[in-house]
Amino acid sequence: MKKIYSVLVENRSGVLCKVAGLFSRRNFNIDSLAVGETDDKSVSRMTIVSSGDSRTIEQVEKQLNKKLDVIKVKTFFENESICRELLFLKVKYNKTNRRDIMENCEIMGAKIVDMSTNLMLIQMCDTPERIQILLDMFKSISIVEIARTGCLALQKCTETD
Amino acid sequence: MKKIYSVLVENRSGVLCKVAGLFSRRNFNIDSLAVGETDDKSVSRMTIVSSGDSRTIEQVEKQLNKKLDVIKVKTFFENESICRELLFLKVKYNKTNRRDIMENCEIMGAKIVDMSTNLMLIQMCDTPERIQILLDMFKSISIVEIARTGCLALQKCTETD
Repeated sequence: MKKIYSVLVENRSGVLCKVAGLFSRRNFNIDSLAVGETDDKSVSRMTIVSSGDSRTIEQVEKQLNKKLDVIKVKTFFENESICRELLFLKVKYNKTNRRDIMENCEIMGAKIVDMSTNLMLIQMCDTPERIQILLDMFKSISIVEIARTGCLALQKCTETD
Repeated sequence: MKKIYSVLVENRSGVLCKVAGLFSRRNFNIDSLAVGETDDKSVSRMTIVSSGDSRTIEQVEKQLNKKLDVIKVKTFFENESICRELLFLKVKYNKTNRRDIMENCEIMGAKIVDMSTNLMLIQMCDTPERIQILLDMFKSISIVEIARTGCLALQKCTETD
């Protein structure tokens, strides 16, 4: 069961470590993590995706709320949220597969954002499932490097916000 | 001086905490952090943006390389890399400003990905500078929530890769 923790924390050195420690002490692996600024420079938002049984999830949530540097914790399941991931994919291309790569990108809504005589850097921003489809399409092409942000998620729009 | 650390690590519970600890022990604030999978499920890539003098940067790099769970460290400056960030912005709208919001999104290449009768969720994937421009455009509109991934970066395409 994948759970998303959206945590507002003080933007201070050491906070990240405290929060990560909370997960690792429970042998709770973090599948993905994205940390970025909010509209308030002194506050960061951590989006953490982790899986575990509901009891452990509840425990982690309680522990998070107890931390001094933690301002607010929201947890929700994948299906209650809008979730997107950013992918960078650096591939080697040649005359034979260049057209294929371009067409794959066009179909999937990915962009070629940098290029040299033998390399292309592809950017895609989509759901984790669609990111996986693109990666599968490129299995036969020589991948040089991959970087992903992990899932960024906010709760779906409801009238109660 | 903003420096980007692109670090390949073993995808194990606790690794994140070790790496974050390395920064915080030096009172080195992490501006942004993105952790995601690579093509190898057992390996994650951490993209860390941090600022500091060149001596401290060198020290951190050395320390990172010493860690058992760290497979590879690459560091580069912002201008040597392609850098993109993903933003989610939830705003309150009404009849009066709806058209404005839509036009701002169109001009900046942002997408409206969810909506209710009074809320919109906007997604934008671009350089940190252009993300900031969008945020400035929405200053006069009631922002409900912001989530950002932090910078995702890979080195520019060169023939030496």
